[in-house]
Amino acid sequence: MRNDITIHPHERVDDLHRDGHLIIQDPKRFCFGVDAVILSGFAKIKKGENVLDLGTGTGIIPILLAAKTEGKHFTGLEIQTESAEMANRSVLLNELEERVSIQEGDIKEAVQLFGASSFDVVTSNPPYMNEGGGLVNPFAAKAIARHEILCSLEDVVAAAARLLRPLGRFYMIHRPHRLTDIMVLLRQYKLEPKRIRFVQPYADKEPTMVLVEAARGGKPMVKVDAPLVIYQAPQEYTEEIVEIYYGKGQA
Amino acid sequence: MRNDITIHPHERVDDLHRDGHLIIQDPKRFCFGVDAVILSGFAKIKKGENVLDLGTGTGIIPILLAAKTEGKHFTGLEIQTESAEMANRSVLLNELEERVSIQEGDIKEAVQLFGASSFDVVTSNPPYMNEGGGLVNPFAAKAIARHEILCSLEDVVAAAARLLRPLGRFYMIHRPHRLTDIMVLLRQYKLEPKRIRFVQPYADKEPTMVLVEAARGGKPMVKVDAPLVIYQAPQEYTEEIVEIYYGKGQA
Repeated sequence: MRNDITIHPHERVDDLHRDGHLIIQDPKRFCFGVDAVILSGFAKIKKGENVLDLGTGTGIIPILLAAKTEGKHFTGLEIQTESAEMANRSVLLNELEERVSIQEGDIKEAVQLFGASSFDVVTSNPPYMNEGGGLVNPFAAKAIARHEILCSLEDVVAAAARLLRPLGRFYMIHRPHRLTDIMVLLRQYKLEPKRIRFVQPYADKEPTMVLVEAARGGKPMVKVDAPLVIYQAPQEYTEEIVEIYYGKGQA
Repeated sequence: MRNDITIHPHERVDDLHRDGHLIIQDPKRFCFGVDAVILSGFAKIKKGENVLDLGTGTGIIPILLAAKTEGKHFTGLEIQTESAEMANRSVLLNELEERVSIQEGDIKEAVQLFGASSFDVVTSNPPYMNEGGGLVNPFAAKAIARHEILCSLEDVVAAAARLLRPLGRFYMIHRPHRLTDIMVLLRQYKLEPKRIRFVQPYADKEPTMVLVEAARGGKPMVKVDAPLVIYQAPQEYTEEIVEIYYGKGQA
């Protein structure tokens, strides 16, 4: 771990509970949530694969995937300059610069940046909100991370479809109420849904998140997994969530 | 209950455990399963509504819905002559002829039979199988009920879309592995998915069935319910399933 990386007074450094990996965050901007951690458990990365994370924010997903998997290289694309700069410092702090790089740029221009069919896997934890656009401040960092201001679900799907090699995999976490939009867009862009997993706070509660794996040019047939349940009792994580947070767990 | 209805030696009469309602079935043809019962619990029928069941088989869904709800009239459409005739005897046996009618005919010609926009609700428990077509005997009654031989998922969705009044509801039970096909076809035919519920044998197992409610011309936003779980222990139904089977329960 390097000790020459600047941490600004408004930032904090959190322990990822994974071989000492740390992440720099700014609570005024956006802190990663359980969804990023769950997505890092759901995405299966094989040895030697090249991975791109669209809208990487703090860089949490490439850093977690670098720590968890034997993937060769992880790129995080982030449109907000301050977020990209902070994510880059987290990469340096963890001495991950050989396996993780952060690129500032727009998802809509990702194909020009990286070239078509250039990744084995694309991940994304995109902004969820497509409603109430008039209520948000379009310049606020949190709003950009949460609302479809700078990129829509279709932008993310369209970029993933072009950036993946044939049969490359796309992993995304999103909200269940967007499920129809997700399935329709994925098929439209020839990213066939192959696996779906709903995330429920409790075994008998409705899901609050949905994980989707799609394959570029895959055959039509989707497997719906058993739900991923977060709590077995109030404030008590299920074994599977503990494994995802603290083990090498893959959901 | 009438006692002048013919029951053939190869047929059996089962108790639906609901106000003494009975159903005639032929085990050599097709007997209704838990899916029909679950669909009858999922479909919300309001007082005075007119309901059509596409591919009604034994007539189980209109008979159960007539027993459970205050819907005005229930029509079951069935392409196989022997099934339609048997379903009709079940209607007479239960003295339901004022509220339930069975029509022999093809789903693909249903709009000509009944007229466009003529129902408040359409239900269907269609054939699930779209693979292995070469392995099935296309003339067998069981194969017709289970495989997409005489009608495809698209035929069912297309018919429902034309038969429903604007904002009329379509309720279907199907297999989770067809989820992408289901969502894509529903949106294509402007039957917007509004509610989805997966059916799992146990709380921690993957779903084996999926219930879908769609609204003709509805707005895009789908609610995914908590899973419907069948067993709480081996051979021990959950309370919700007991309620659906023996109470007025609606899933």
